[in-house]
Amino acid sequence: MRLARIAHPDGVAFGSIEADGDDNDAAQVLEIADHPFGQPNFTGKRWPLADVRLLAPILPTKVIAVGRNYAKHAEEFGNEVPSDPMIFLKPSTTVIGPNAAIKLPPASSRVDFEGELAVVIGRPVRNISAEAAPAAILGYTVANDVSARDLQASDGQWGRAKGFDTFCPLGPWISTEVDPSDLRLTSEVDGVVKQDARTSAMVHKVYDLVAFVSSVMTLLPGDVILTGTPEGVGRIEAGQQVSITIEGIGTLTNPVQDA
Amino acid sequence: MRLARIAHPDGVAFGSIEADGDDNDAAQVLEIADHPFGQPNFTGKRWPLADVRLLAPILPTKVIAVGRNYAKHAEEFGNEVPSDPMIFLKPSTTVIGPNAAIKLPPASSRVDFEGELAVVIGRPVRNISAEAAPAAILGYTVANDVSARDLQASDGQWGRAKGFDTFCPLGPWISTEVDPSDLRLTSEVDGVVKQDARTSAMVHKVYDLVAFVSSVMTLLPGDVILTGTPEGVGRIEAGQQVSITIEGIGTLTNPVQDA
Repeated sequence: MRLARIAHPDGVAFGSIEADGDDNDAAQVLEIADHPFGQPNFTGKRWPLADVRLLAPILPTKVIAVGRNYAKHAEEFGNEVPSDPMIFLKPSTTVIGPNAAIKLPPASSRVDFEGELAVVIGRPVRNISAEAAPAAILGYTVANDVSARDLQASDGQWGRAKGFDTFCPLGPWISTEVDPSDLRLTSEVDGVVKQDARTSAMVHKVYDLVAFVSSVMTLLPGDVILTGTPEGVGRIEAGQQVSITIEGIGTLTNPVQDA
Repeated sequence: MRLARIAHPDGVAFGSIEADGDDNDAAQVLEIADHPFGQPNFTGKRWPLADVRLLAPILPTKVIAVGRNYAKHAEEFGNEVPSDPMIFLKPSTTVIGPNAAIKLPPASSRVDFEGELAVVIGRPVRNISAEAAPAAILGYTVANDVSARDLQASDGQWGRAKGFDTFCPLGPWISTEVDPSDLRLTSEVDGVVKQDARTSAMVHKVYDLVAFVSSVMTLLPGDVILTGTPEGVGRIEAGQQVSITIEGIGTLTNPVQDA
């Protein structure tokens, strides 16, 4: 199933996207009542995908991100790969949906995109094993861990550099049936490929990350774990457009503007 | 006004604590309908304070903390005071109320208390000035920014060290009429005074902090900003009790247990 959050003519709702194969032009969105956790209840309303606006597919209570989880990305900045996952948080106010603008804050003169596989949690869990992780996961979406690189260096802690409004594009939807272990991830800025890697290159794998984070904090339905970015990150500037594609999920595209 | 969140015989509610002077033994809690933002609506129900259980006075969508905001505390760890406030986030799942147990995680062998003045935001704000900050603040409470000191050092980023469940005691209530600029803050472990400082020693002052954080991220009603801890932080161990008192607000006490 592909779960989306949509703005439709009558309001905002969760929905399931139904298509014949990959032909999104003919796809329909079937409205889900209330929330998409557990067995969804369909309301019977439906719209052509082309007639609705896709929003961030989930509004998380928290976004946990993992630093330096691809060895070649750690190398880009001369960092070692940490033995335990290095986690930090992005405020929920960073989250935007597909096609919403990433806004470059005046406080930074160097903002980078970072394409990442995002895990969406499906049920409350605490201190679970890696073996129990798949049952705790609702699905996967695409994330851009937008980062003010200059402030990241000068502040030391990344609360500001990773925490500006609009710095966590998520979408276009949540794929519930994808195997996260070896997916191709590509990022493009204005059509030029910048990142091209596979999730199999993660140092700490998805289920281990979920288990690790759950050993620290209770995870709630809708919480999002960003699993780190591969090599090839780089600057984005006002007027550009950044697209991140993950095999089996889809493409997340956002324009870039001055705030 | 002193705003509390309480468990009473019929459920959970916000309330206003009314007392003659400082005599809490005779205090009453007047139930507030829905939420405490704006002009509260009283339901007419009331209970003696002694008959209810105080919960964390607010459930924030995010907790923003400020590092190294007292020069003498920065010195304790050989750190410089940053020119801009250094912010990091604690997940909302860290929040517990008065008298709830701080649970020491097995992953750490050194957990510290940190007594702090906490600012509770009262309305949605973005990019406000320090002059506009007072109108955006609901009030002040006491916080303990519990920190796994060993993991803070080894991880680099503080998402794990500051993010374990129970690592953000808040309470006992929110004082709405206190001036935050020069309040005495004391912390005691098992009755022994460990911190004794004044909020006037903050490097970045409360209204400047609110303005700074709001220049990064939208603040929502109930969001909490921890304003940093003064010198004197130290270890807590299972079986101990830690109490933090701020003049004009009250005392936040929590026992410490192994998780």
